[in-house]
Amino acid sequence: MTVEAFASQAAGSAQAAPILPSYIAGSWWTPSQPQRIAEVHDAVTGELVCQVSTDGLDTAAAVVYARSTGQASLGELTFHQRALRLKELALHLSEHKETLYNISDRTGATRKDHLIDIDGGIGTLFAFSSKGRKELPNSHVIIDGDIEQLSRDGSFIGEHIYTRLTGVAVQINAFNFPVWGMLEKLAPSFIAGVPTIVKPATATGYVTEACVRLMLESGLLPEGSLQLISGSARDLLDHLDHRDHVAFTGSAATAAALRSHPNVQEGGVRFTAETDSLNAAILGPDAVPGTPEFDAFIKAVVTEITVKAGQKCTAIRRVIVPSEHVDAVVGALRERVDSRAVLGDPRDSETTVGALASKDQQAEVARAVEKLIAAGGSVCFGGPDATLQGRLSGSADPEAGAFYPVTALTFPKPRTPEVHQVEAFGPVTSVLGYTDIDDAVDLAALGGGSLVATVCTHDPKIAAEFVRGIGSHHGRVHLLDRDDAKTSTGHGSPLPHLVHGGPGRAGGGEELGGIRGVKHYMQRTALQGTPDLLTGITGIWHRGAQADTATPESIAAGTAVHPFRKPLDQLRIGDQFASGLREVRLEDIEAFAESTGDTFYAHTNEEAATANPFFPRRVAHGYLLVSWAAGLFVEPAPGPVLANTGLENLSFLTPVTYGDSIRVTLTAKQITPRETDDYGEVRWDTVLHNQHDEIVATYDVLTRVAKKMPDWAQ
Amino acid sequence: MTVEAFASQAAGSAQAAPILPSYIAGSWWTPSQPQRIAEVHDAVTGELVCQVSTDGLDTAAAVVYARSTGQASLGELTFHQRALRLKELALHLSEHKETLYNISDRTGATRKDHLIDIDGGIGTLFAFSSKGRKELPNSHVIIDGDIEQLSRDGSFIGEHIYTRLTGVAVQINAFNFPVWGMLEKLAPSFIAGVPTIVKPATATGYVTEACVRLMLESGLLPEGSLQLISGSARDLLDHLDHRDHVAFTGSAATAAALRSHPNVQEGGVRFTAETDSLNAAILGPDAVPGTPEFDAFIKAVVTEITVKAGQKCTAIRRVIVPSEHVDAVVGALRERVDSRAVLGDPRDSETTVGALASKDQQAEVARAVEKLIAAGGSVCFGGPDATLQGRLSGSADPEAGAFYPVTALTFPKPRTPEVHQVEAFGPVTSVLGYTDIDDAVDLAALGGGSLVATVCTHDPKIAAEFVRGIGSHHGRVHLLDRDDAKTSTGHGSPLPHLVHGGPGRAGGGEELGGIRGVKHYMQRTALQGTPDLLTGITGIWHRGAQADTATPESIAAGTAVHPFRKPLDQLRIGDQFASGLREVRLEDIEAFAESTGDTFYAHTNEEAATANPFFPRRVAHGYLLVSWAAGLFVEPAPGPVLANTGLENLSFLTPVTYGDSIRVTLTAKQITPRETDDYGEVRWDTVLHNQHDEIVATYDVLTRVAKKMPDWAQ
Repeated sequence: MTVEAFASQAAGSAQAAPILPSYIAGSWWTPSQPQRIAEVHDAVTGELVCQVSTDGLDTAAAVVYARSTGQASLGELTFHQRALRLKELALHLSEHKETLYNISDRTGATRKDHLIDIDGGIGTLFAFSSKGRKELPNSHVIIDGDIEQLSRDGSFIGEHIYTRLTGVAVQINAFNFPVWGMLEKLAPSFIAGVPTIVKPATATGYVTEACVRLMLESGLLPEGSLQLISGSARDLLDHLDHRDHVAFTGSAATAAALRSHPNVQEGGVRFTAETDSLNAAILGPDAVPGTPEFDAFIKAVVTEITVKAGQKCTAIRRVIVPSEHVDAVVGALRERVDSRAVLGDPRDSETTVGALASKDQQAEVARAVEKLIAAGGSVCFGGPDATLQGRLSGSADPEAGAFYPVTALTFPKPRTPEVHQVEAFGPVTSVLGYTDIDDAVDLAALGGGSLVATVCTHDPKIAAEFVRGIGSHHGRVHLLDRDDAKTSTGHGSPLPHLVHGGPGRAGGGEELGGIRGVKHYMQRTALQGTPDLLTGITGIWHRGAQADTATPESIAAGTAVHPFRKPLDQLRIGDQFASGLREVRLEDIEAFAESTGDTFYAHTNEEAATANPFFPRRVAHGYLLVSWAAGLFVEPAPGPVLANTGLENLSFLTPVTYGDSIRVTLTAKQITPRETDDYGEVRWDTVLHNQHDEIVATYDVLTRVAKKMPDWAQ
Repeated sequence: MTVEAFASQAAGSAQAAPILPSYIAGSWWTPSQPQRIAEVHDAVTGELVCQVSTDGLDTAAAVVYARSTGQASLGELTFHQRALRLKELALHLSEHKETLYNISDRTGATRKDHLIDIDGGIGTLFAFSSKGRKELPNSHVIIDGDIEQLSRDGSFIGEHIYTRLTGVAVQINAFNFPVWGMLEKLAPSFIAGVPTIVKPATATGYVTEACVRLMLESGLLPEGSLQLISGSARDLLDHLDHRDHVAFTGSAATAAALRSHPNVQEGGVRFTAETDSLNAAILGPDAVPGTPEFDAFIKAVVTEITVKAGQKCTAIRRVIVPSEHVDAVVGALRERVDSRAVLGDPRDSETTVGALASKDQQAEVARAVEKLIAAGGSVCFGGPDATLQGRLSGSADPEAGAFYPVTALTFPKPRTPEVHQVEAFGPVTSVLGYTDIDDAVDLAALGGGSLVATVCTHDPKIAAEFVRGIGSHHGRVHLLDRDDAKTSTGHGSPLPHLVHGGPGRAGGGEELGGIRGVKHYMQRTALQGTPDLLTGITGIWHRGAQADTATPESIAAGTAVHPFRKPLDQLRIGDQFASGLREVRLEDIEAFAESTGDTFYAHTNEEAATANPFFPRRVAHGYLLVSWAAGLFVEPAPGPVLANTGLENLSFLTPVTYGDSIRVTLTAKQITPRETDDYGEVRWDTVLHNQHDEIVATYDVLTRVAKKMPDWAQ
């Protein structure tokens, strides 16, 4: 059945709504005789969309399939190959996103909301694809940090590597982002090479199912790399152990329940949670009414409480402003909501705020607002007494649809515990007054750990004071002022490049953050051993390991080939060129100073150079040394080396004065063929020695090298 | 009371053994009317050493004191200042280490064991002190990773920072390393700036108490930075929340109990555990008897099961060897144990293996060995039937002391669950046979996650195969062969530079690992905002932020000062020099090729350069560009800039051909004054543009700059 077929079948027949299939162990599956069935309704019309049941699902088989078939098929691909696959998946989903939009309409989300969920999810695939290929090696092991010298003679060294987990990534998502929620977790685990079992929330799982179906239809997913549980995950956690990873997004209560599972508590299952939190937006003391910051702040708050009808774990629940500006803030919020927020059926073009995901959610939000009022909150606008009858756009029915009015409250006592603890997961926020920055920091901290806070100020000192105070309580801090108000991606938007998650109430987890997110699905291991063994393990040449050395003499004799003559299909790590010595004369230093203009005293003034604590007398320019080193190591004839693209970690260790000589040793350290080009990157370990065999300088030279000898270079 | 006074009082009087004091809220404390009292005995003689009780201890006050006084006093110091304090503490402890040796003798440890605990602990302080000053900024915020461009115009950027936790670090340690156990956790939390409450194990807490007393006597500890609970931590965890961190080392059962505390489960307390695991040593298929690897392997195994009488969480519990070599391995182990292992009173010079920490531990080990035997293990040597009577060195009494014979078992069925699960925390190991590498990987994995494994092989391919198989099950893999057998720091020794901890059974935690360990006590937060605000927050200049620009013209006019003329007491981040344009002529390229010898075809062969996919025609050398840039930006007169020490992240973005011109902009990006020198490091953001204002290259120039204008430069 195609996506469209299932969607139209689902939409067509309310009586016989089908059971949403799961995709397990390589096949679509529905229960044969389900007992426990949940019904899923259109958030706007109340029509039955589908039924959900996983009665009889063999979760153990899913785990075994992932650990065997999924691990094997992903293991055949390198980081770059997996990353490229994500780009192809993203292109495929882009082509079919209208299909997903249409299905998503039933969740109550507007077209603008779809941009966040569907386009945002696809964008996350693109971003991870790009980062995976730019920032990771094209292999299976990531090196973390520098080599540690553990013995004087260099025979015993240490370093850290990441290797993929050998189990399954179980990804349990929330109802508010059925597509982004899946893809933002899948992208990093996929690049890491760990197969996924995704379990979307029941209320909107039919959108996730449609997306999984599209991805499977593309033929791009390696066998076993993705399975889908449409409905309860049942006893899935019973089958997990220390090889496996569970990433959860949802309520703090469910997170606590999952975390208390014996396999998490004592069995070593890696568990991470991202729970919604009572995120704050703080108006700086300088951002008074009339400043561009004030206007940007009001706009940001209204956006955050209306997008997705406020159903975002990152939404602004606490608006913390100078006490004297509470009224101005409330007034400005009311004005903007009145003029901009049009509730209704997302399929109506004038609608700007859609429905909540279900009538259950509507009731939940209403209960939370009642709690806030009971605790002392005053409704400024919206709230339980606001009528929606006759005020919804188009033909939307306030009884059938899960609508809730955009609502703001104030609290005479800003330390009222409930306002920092009770979350109304809808278009609802509370405005609190603060006396000074310390007070604002304390109020923000009362959230007990949050995903994100906005700090609105144009003063770097105020920004620094706030970040120093609230940084460790927050996974992300968004700084808003006149200069980024237009370009900011917004308080509420987690980005693939930046970590998403937060301490305490926010779950204590971390997702995304570019390659950081990939590493969440890998184990960091310290390695200790010889350069030869660490070279063998990592595929990256380590200084001190065996090398295949060419010298000017051996090349002249025809017994060796300069590594610059080898295209990638011939070049191997450890291929090395070692030059002879070249003497640096005073006249060379003087000529270099003259031609470059670099007449710094250390190169030109014998007296000052000698007085300088680090130099014996006039010394050669560091730039002279690296320029000469290039002169010593290059092979000038046209060949496979296409360009020198950069240089890293250059460190000058021993000064070179006139009369000294230098030689260079250049070794192919890392070879990264590109998947989609006819060349790749080669990193060359470079060491300069002087005539006493002391190390003068070390660095990496970065080059592009053709995979095969180019025609024009033959 | 001085350390010596307490120690001699404790040693002197068995009847009236004092209660070991705690150090809480700035004062030494003992219970006034203790009800629950534990007795601690000499592991060798059985004499009463001290009593332990925390009846009535106000743990809430300790937490409040740490969060207020401890946070404030540590917050006044920068990373470098705290790191330097650690060095001074290490020097102070070094001066008094004989005191600690003498006290430690009573724990059953030998002088060689003291080297691991006491000297190892002091060495950890030195290592962290050095790394803290070399690898961290001299400030309060750590930047993690690169800047992310989040808007096209550069007005909205993202990056990650670490800021310290605002609570307390509770560090609960095991009995086997009373000094190292404290210091390896304290060093990173201290540098992070988080105050510590340390709770050593009761059996050997008197050694920790002596060490804390020495550190306090030094006067080097900022107020509130260290508190000590000598005995039960009682209700301490009840007072912790998401601001706080608990690091536990000990048994898996205690770890599970702590982890299940509601404040960990739902309150967001950050919890990390390092539990002893059933670590493996694997003899590679190439490391047959007669090879240097085989000999090194036998030596390593015997060392690991006899040092600290085998009471190390990293000890080798499973010796996994080719089936056909099981007998040879057992024989060689027996021979080495017979010839080297002399049990007895550590105070006797011939003793090489001391006592277990207590009679309780002795009984525990005996019970575990019985379990292994009941599960099918055969005793090869040692074990329950081995007699110690008359075989101990010197005057040691086998009844009074907690001795256990060095023991090895074999298992006919290597997959016997107990051998992978039951840990005898003493001088006990089991030898298992494997058929091939996959089988050995499987056997190692049956440990369910370990701190460390040794793989003994001289073949990089075999090493790679093993690491790919067991990497994600292990926190550390130690590769042993003929080339590092002499220089290896050993299977069992966690090093300050490398992470310590492991997945699953090993607790799932991570400690040490250099600056990685410091970050465990900090929160990673994503920041989004303008370059100006991020500059203000981090104290590091961000490209695009405001700068104070000097040009050749403004300097000539006397209205600006070249930043190279400013010593650190005048230099500010954002101080900038912007040069004029300089044209690159073909003759310059030719002359540079000639003088440096860098005649690479892209600079010398018009036809090949044009055919090359990245160049328009002959281009300037990258090295010419950076050399000229230096010529454009330097201020040649003697001054506070002492040396160019390196260059980082050089990236060539746009080729420069003859007829193009370049200019350079150099901006003080990061200033790192040294605590103990009259100079510091300055990192300069460097950008080269061409005549079309396109970016040609970007990099950081690293320099040393004097704090004040040197006499010889005035």
